Amino acid sequence: MQIAILSFFHYFTPMFKKRENISEVEEGKFLSPKFDKDGLIPVTTTDHKSGDVLMHGYMNQEALKKTIEKKEAFYWSRSRKTLWHKGKTSGFVQKVIDIRIDDDQDSLWMSVDIGDGASCHVGYKSCFYRSISLGEIENTKEIKLEFKEKEKKFDPEVVYKNQPNPTKL
Amino acid sequence: MQIAILSFFHYFTPMFKKRENISEVEEGKFLSPKFDKDGLIPVTTTDHKSGDVLMHGYMNQEALKKTIEKKEAFYWSRSRKTLWHKGKTSGFVQKVIDIRIDDDQDSLWMSVDIGDGASCHVGYKSCFYRSISLGEIENTKEIKLEFKEKEKKFDPEVVYKNQPNPTKL
Repeated sequence: MQIAILSFFHYFTPMFKKRENISEVEEGKFLSPKFDKDGLIPVTTTDHKSGDVLMHGYMNQEALKKTIEKKEAFYWSRSRKTLWHKGKTSGFVQKVIDIRIDDDQDSLWMSVDIGDGASCHVGYKSCFYRSISLGEIENTKEIKLEFKEKEKKFDPEVVYKNQPNPTKL
Repeated sequence: MQIAILSFFHYFTPMFKKRENISEVEEGKFLSPKFDKDGLIPVTTTDHKSGDVLMHGYMNQEALKKTIEKKEAFYWSRSRKTLWHKGKTSGFVQKVIDIRIDDDQDSLWMSVDIGDGASCHVGYKSCFYRSISLGEIENTKEIKLEFKEKEKKFDPEVVYKNQPNPTKL
């Protein structure tokens, strides 16, 4: 019975403020994150020095709490369906410099330090290593991508060995 | 009959390359975006000068095509369920400088020029105007936010008049 009461209390502790009115969500001074129907909030992670976007991921409640407490990035892996301490395998842990939340508190921007490391499982520093060609679209032609990073920071086949590729078709 | 054939042809024109194998998606030179079960792809929009994240939104196929062609940002408004030419009401159109796509092509990073304008419907330059206090979490205490932008760039009550607020609880 005591365990049940403790769990109940823990579940309802007001660590994340309840979303009660729009003015508080938009202009208030307390964290009231909105998790989507899958229990996730999107996170854009940038390099605190260059400002480049390194990756786009998702956190569940546990990942967000751990990230705030440990000041290292934890995500929810949608492909592996598990909490994911970023860099645990590759060694490229993300040290959290700043986390911001947007107006309606349903999206996070996290600024991190990865030193000279990488954030992309393909081996590049940023996951966003390709630019889309802009301009008129011709209906019968495919749209080209241009590589903006030329060299990989590590060899994914060495680092991840036989782990499954998170990319899905 | 001719109309039906044209529509069929238009629908299957390979403007977005079909996602056929993981190596092509990750290391290929053609755009093969993955839209989620709601037909959307997340977009992180940054200021091309400061590098600051301005907003996080979503595009459907039409919004992405229009953005590439017009070099101005179009999103899918999830609250209004309509194509959304950003800045049409406020005047703060986003001129597209660069669009990048990530390794598995299910997320976009768009760098834009908004001059001295704003991107947030609350009136701030960036939607991410508040930082989360990092460190140990006390179970009975709410987590504080700190305002990083002090002044609004415009008065939303003047600009948006009686339009419904897109923020939902």
